[in-house]
Amino acid sequence: MRFIAFLNDQDQPALGVRVGADALIDLGADGGPASLDELLRQGEAGMQAVRAAVERGIVRRPLAGLRYLPPVLNPGKALAIGLNYVDHAAESSFDPPKHPVVFQRYRSSWVAHGQPLVRPHVSTQFDYEAELVAVIGKAGRYIPREQALAHVAGYSLFNDGSIRDYQLRTNQWLLGKNFDDSGAFGPELVTADELPPGAKGLRLQCRLNGQTVQEANTRDMIFDVATLVSVCSQAMALEPGDLLITGTPSGVGMARKPQLWMQPGDVCEVEIERVGLLRNPIVDEG
Amino acid sequence: MRFIAFLNDQDQPALGVRVGADALIDLGADGGPASLDELLRQGEAGMQAVRAAVERGIVRRPLAGLRYLPPVLNPGKALAIGLNYVDHAAESSFDPPKHPVVFQRYRSSWVAHGQPLVRPHVSTQFDYEAELVAVIGKAGRYIPREQALAHVAGYSLFNDGSIRDYQLRTNQWLLGKNFDDSGAFGPELVTADELPPGAKGLRLQCRLNGQTVQEANTRDMIFDVATLVSVCSQAMALEPGDLLITGTPSGVGMARKPQLWMQPGDVCEVEIERVGLLRNPIVDEG
Repeated sequence: MRFIAFLNDQDQPALGVRVGADALIDLGADGGPASLDELLRQGEAGMQAVRAAVERGIVRRPLAGLRYLPPVLNPGKALAIGLNYVDHAAESSFDPPKHPVVFQRYRSSWVAHGQPLVRPHVSTQFDYEAELVAVIGKAGRYIPREQALAHVAGYSLFNDGSIRDYQLRTNQWLLGKNFDDSGAFGPELVTADELPPGAKGLRLQCRLNGQTVQEANTRDMIFDVATLVSVCSQAMALEPGDLLITGTPSGVGMARKPQLWMQPGDVCEVEIERVGLLRNPIVDEG
Repeated sequence: MRFIAFLNDQDQPALGVRVGADALIDLGADGGPASLDELLRQGEAGMQAVRAAVERGIVRRPLAGLRYLPPVLNPGKALAIGLNYVDHAAESSFDPPKHPVVFQRYRSSWVAHGQPLVRPHVSTQFDYEAELVAVIGKAGRYIPREQALAHVAGYSLFNDGSIRDYQLRTNQWLLGKNFDDSGAFGPELVTADELPPGAKGLRLQCRLNGQTVQEANTRDMIFDVATLVSVCSQAMALEPGDLLITGTPSGVGMARKPQLWMQPGDVCEVEIERVGLLRNPIVDEG
């Protein structure tokens, strides 16, 4: 299934399942959950109810004009992984890491599919980063790598937009990775059963104004999704809705000669084969 | 005022104001808020209502036997500051930072006053860090340093318990700073009007089994509370309830010869003059 979170006609968060190319079934209008956050906490029983609701298909609405929300609205943890592709570590002048490199990406720093990414007035170094997201469906601590993929509900896309001067002016990256409305998440949560195990072997691209600026394959990650789930769960119980934002390959704007920064009027697209296409315009802060 | 969050007799979160040395007024029992999270979102009107409730003093309960909760239950952001005392940066073999060093400390990693700090079975390198916490009361973005303290509702204490091998095995500290139940927050939120501006000039101590292992003064911070508020708000709007956990001075266990780690059976105390005393036993993971 492909879940889409959106604002309904009453401006309330709602959750749908896409049917075909251009419509969704509104689950909330059939007594179902209003968010993936809620659905994921319900576990398998919730998913079964959703399948029945999709069969009934009571309220169908077109995707045209839909106001998207991030697929998960308020996870406890949004664990972003750094330097998880060898060539990106190299272009960033870091050694390939021996363990997963983890930082937080706050909810306040994301926008949804179609919403503008905001370049703050304190910097011009606004960079793109195309990434696969794994969304936790089943809680766990000390999850063995061999069982880790059973804890993943599905996959989505992230543009881990970064304010490079702020990111790199100290040794901890949090501030430059968390400017308000500087990253994007969506458009859909694709359940794991629709993709290869661990979402491996999928082509990943970032395009800026139609020009391909990053191109890689998810199999090139240094630490695959199963490893990331297992390692992060050594420190903390992972909970339904938690995100693992799995890192970006080479081609970022900072490493180019000349450097390439996102500017107002640009359009940035992140695409992963079979997962979807996340498109956002860039604007200057109002 | 001195706010205490606790579990009431119905096992529900509740909020009180301490009166004298050994009792509190239960605000929820008088129709008031059940958490500081809720109260801080109400702003000045909420604080006025609290003052009236304290005057009425309808339900008074003893502190003895109280089951404390962390003063703020679920902030959007818990911004922890690293290397914010010159002598701690030096003992950790880092240069003093030129800008605030920021990482996230998840809710799942804290316990309340009196609750056990948990040493995980995957490490023995469990270190203490005594810190002052500033809690945001008024939202803002791009807050000028001169106005920053008006955005702080009050102050508390944090033991930024750290699993050092996990913290330092990559360049981002998040995992080692976020083991479940490895840090402590509390016991009280002391409103800013009860303390010197910016909570400056207060003696800060950490004691392990009664032995003083850290001793400093909050005026020794490299970046004071006003600067931290101002700089963090360049990246993100700060919201009521957000935490700034302002960093630890020298004396941590990792830097001692021989090294000193917290072990089951130990008791760790963080104390800041006029702010309070945060005490937690150490246990091994069950």
